[in-house]
Amino acid sequence: MDAAVVVLPTLHEFTEPLLLKSGARLARYSLMVETYGTLNAARTNAVLVCHALNASHHVAGRSADDVLGWWDNMVGPGKPVDTNQFFVVGVNNLGSCFGSTGPTSINPDTGTPYGADFPLVTVEDWVEAQARLADRLGIERFAAVIGGSLGGMQALAWSMRYPARLDHCVAIASTTRLSAQNIAFNDVARQAILSDPDFHGGHYHQFGVVPKRGLRLARMIGHITYLSDDDMASKFGRTLKADDLLYGFGVDFEIESYLRYQGDKFSEYFDANTYLLITKALDYFDPARETGGSLAQALARASARFLIVSFTTDWRFAPERSREMVRSLLEARRAVTYLEIDAPHGHDAFLLDDAHYHAGIRAYFASIAHGIGVAP
Amino acid sequence: MDAAVVVLPTLHEFTEPLLLKSGARLARYSLMVETYGTLNAARTNAVLVCHALNASHHVAGRSADDVLGWWDNMVGPGKPVDTNQFFVVGVNNLGSCFGSTGPTSINPDTGTPYGADFPLVTVEDWVEAQARLADRLGIERFAAVIGGSLGGMQALAWSMRYPARLDHCVAIASTTRLSAQNIAFNDVARQAILSDPDFHGGHYHQFGVVPKRGLRLARMIGHITYLSDDDMASKFGRTLKADDLLYGFGVDFEIESYLRYQGDKFSEYFDANTYLLITKALDYFDPARETGGSLAQALARASARFLIVSFTTDWRFAPERSREMVRSLLEARRAVTYLEIDAPHGHDAFLLDDAHYHAGIRAYFASIAHGIGVAP
Repeated sequence: MDAAVVVLPTLHEFTEPLLLKSGARLARYSLMVETYGTLNAARTNAVLVCHALNASHHVAGRSADDVLGWWDNMVGPGKPVDTNQFFVVGVNNLGSCFGSTGPTSINPDTGTPYGADFPLVTVEDWVEAQARLADRLGIERFAAVIGGSLGGMQALAWSMRYPARLDHCVAIASTTRLSAQNIAFNDVARQAILSDPDFHGGHYHQFGVVPKRGLRLARMIGHITYLSDDDMASKFGRTLKADDLLYGFGVDFEIESYLRYQGDKFSEYFDANTYLLITKALDYFDPARETGGSLAQALARASARFLIVSFTTDWRFAPERSREMVRSLLEARRAVTYLEIDAPHGHDAFLLDDAHYHAGIRAYFASIAHGIGVAP
Repeated sequence: MDAAVVVLPTLHEFTEPLLLKSGARLARYSLMVETYGTLNAARTNAVLVCHALNASHHVAGRSADDVLGWWDNMVGPGKPVDTNQFFVVGVNNLGSCFGSTGPTSINPDTGTPYGADFPLVTVEDWVEAQARLADRLGIERFAAVIGGSLGGMQALAWSMRYPARLDHCVAIASTTRLSAQNIAFNDVARQAILSDPDFHGGHYHQFGVVPKRGLRLARMIGHITYLSDDDMASKFGRTLKADDLLYGFGVDFEIESYLRYQGDKFSEYFDANTYLLITKALDYFDPARETGGSLAQALARASARFLIVSFTTDWRFAPERSREMVRSLLEARRAVTYLEIDAPHGHDAFLLDDAHYHAGIRAYFASIAHGIGVAP
């Protein structure tokens, strides 16, 4: 994007009911969407960007309130996913809290916010909603579906659910199933929210409060898993905030100050029910569950070409999880490119501007652009 | 111990004030102590066992209420630390909640529990109190001071503070300083307690409540770091508790059930102020801080022989931390034996009955027994 140009989102309303994987049914819903670049006449240059836990439709450029998109270093004119070549779609997922229908939206049946009554949605439900959005936008087939972390799960789910609707699947710092340790961290975070006296069974809006204590703890726990041990050591180490130890429970170490700040900030803007719901979507994703445990069999439904990217110091979704996907893709005789990036920043690396990482994505998308004849 | 024999603790009272590292002063205090075996005439066969976060003086044998000691697989007649040869001392640390003076004790100045008024104590303060206990028991010099995790820190602190008072220092699954990530986990756990509305600034006893929610979360967070990722995967994996997903926030996965149970159990018996205080003792321990960052220089004060033990899957205090100690000890020209045990159980391995681990400790203590002529 030209930094001076403000990107405005569009709310798309859908009135055909959506049957969710849980069996629940959303009679109507809206999706908040941003697009960047221009859909070509042949409609072959669309790229769907799927977001992770706390991001949104605002992928790139500046919003009306002057906020830069969460993946602005990756998506834009001349960027690795070049919006001079591609028509990029960012969508806030169902159940989130940035404009699409979710727990903070008004439940048409009651006239008050859904709160805890908003149904749990899954990665596959998001893909369904995104597919309907694609229909609405006149996109029969994406040149690529791309995402990091939970966003990567959506890209993978696309490849299995709608094999004919994407040419390339790009899953970065992702996994096809959470480990027991991943679930454990998610559950402690959820328990922090669920046990906050201000949670009120998820209907806190009725009490005029927000379970900020729980959200703050949830974010602090999550944040530790996003950074690598080494990166924390080099950024913070044992550096003290003041000259000496406090012998109290204020801030002794810089790392404490940093984490508490992250927790406080998050608890100011994020919705607790949304946090619960999205962590459950993470926990539940497990495509191999439907094929008797065989990931290769699950992935054999796909026809896209794959780019799988992992980061050496990511201990949340470690390279081994990506290598497992690559092995399964090869077993399923699918075309796969694998990049394992030596980067110090842990899981968060997928959001950062690492030269090798960006060069890899740039080269991959340049080859896609070349293939569909949109390269300059 | 003969399993039929009940071990009874003894409360030792101390009236000489203890000046703490923080500058605070404890006018009087008591230590709860258990001993096993017999002190020989030459008083050369005493072994001090130091405990970690949530353990106590009750190291081995059965207590009056039929609870087995926390290290009963390691300490007892015929066990690796053989009480037929050694006189073993277990002591509940100052500030803990199992009988020694701590936040739950009555503050003689007020006639009510100390609560948050109990001063922060450090690893070095524990060593001071333990040294006075040794005086009381007539032990001038320990054959060995041994501990795992935080207990290992105390053994290391003994070697530097009272070099002439121990022959051997045995530090298992330990470190000479917490990393930023370790501190981060501790601080999130503390924030869970501090932000529990039932905490009341640490004076919850005055309100007739206990910050159970916070303690439960703290324990769940801690517990994740005690187990290895692999061990969690093999014990729990993605096994569901019921036949299918709940699409709610009850227990979907076995790992959730396990962790919540651990948290609930802990919150029933452990004191919140004690948890805060002990995690701070962990964070603050950093002997190299007093020698301008040189661990070798700090350890050069020691004259004991060292046994350092680590476990391959321990990611809380990883083998690299132990290897760092070994390198510093060698640099300081100290005698050191290093065991790196290939065990799947993460940090908790130091409490478990692993054959190679126990064989190593057994051999080391047999050689100590031989050296002091107490071997059979």
